[in-house]
Amino acid sequence: MERIPINLLEKAAQIKELWTPKIIARMNDDHFKLARVKGEFVWHSHNDTDEAFLVLQGKLTIQFRDGAVTLEAGELYVVPRGVEHRPVAHQECLILLIEPAGTVNTGEAGGDLTAPADAWI
Amino acid sequence: MERIPINLLEKAAQIKELWTPKIIARMNDDHFKLARVKGEFVWHSHNDTDEAFLVLQGKLTIQFRDGAVTLEAGELYVVPRGVEHRPVAHQECLILLIEPAGTVNTGEAGGDLTAPADAWI
Repeated sequence: MERIPINLLEKAAQIKELWTPKIIARMNDDHFKLARVKGEFVWHSHNDTDEAFLVLQGKLTIQFRDGAVTLEAGELYVVPRGVEHRPVAHQECLILLIEPAGTVNTGEAGGDLTAPADAWI
Repeated sequence: MERIPINLLEKAAQIKELWTPKIIARMNDDHFKLARVKGEFVWHSHNDTDEAFLVLQGKLTIQFRDGAVTLEAGELYVVPRGVEHRPVAHQECLILLIEPAGTVNTGEAGGDLTAPADAWI
């Protein structure tokens, strides 16, 4: 049986659009998703789940209604369930998201930036 | 409210022992754990869960009874539940594990290399 490592940067090179997370792996009921992001996302929350962000390249600010956290490459943060947040990247940034399968990028907010939650690369 | 990014390498610098995963974050029922590894671990399996390995530094081979996969830095692999495996690192290697809280490093095998499953750094 051939087993193939999942190379994060090789996978990321296949992503052409911003703010469209692509699934690269599944562990139990969770998906690992890569996303290229730049600019301001929408304010949203995920009422049923926490959401883990690991920055691989660039810098990501996650705004909250009462503050913010900025992640550089190699930094992780877990947004608790139900907490409104807005990711913002002043430069293009590559992130790895870990969250339950089916989690929608815009959470409860919806809108134009909503991406399919089942797209693999 | 102050929110602090979790810097993987700064956390890893606090780990002195090999093969002793330390928890750095929780997402829902999963833990993110860092481990420094070198040499050969024990053959084991986790009958109730998959286990995700992300190599941050160095190179890790995961042996299976019918083959192996080698991960370099920036590569991810998910070992399916119930599959016997043995991690081997010829040079010291830093890995990020993502698995359910309470998962024991030696799985069903036990033995001297069994580490506490609830140690945070």
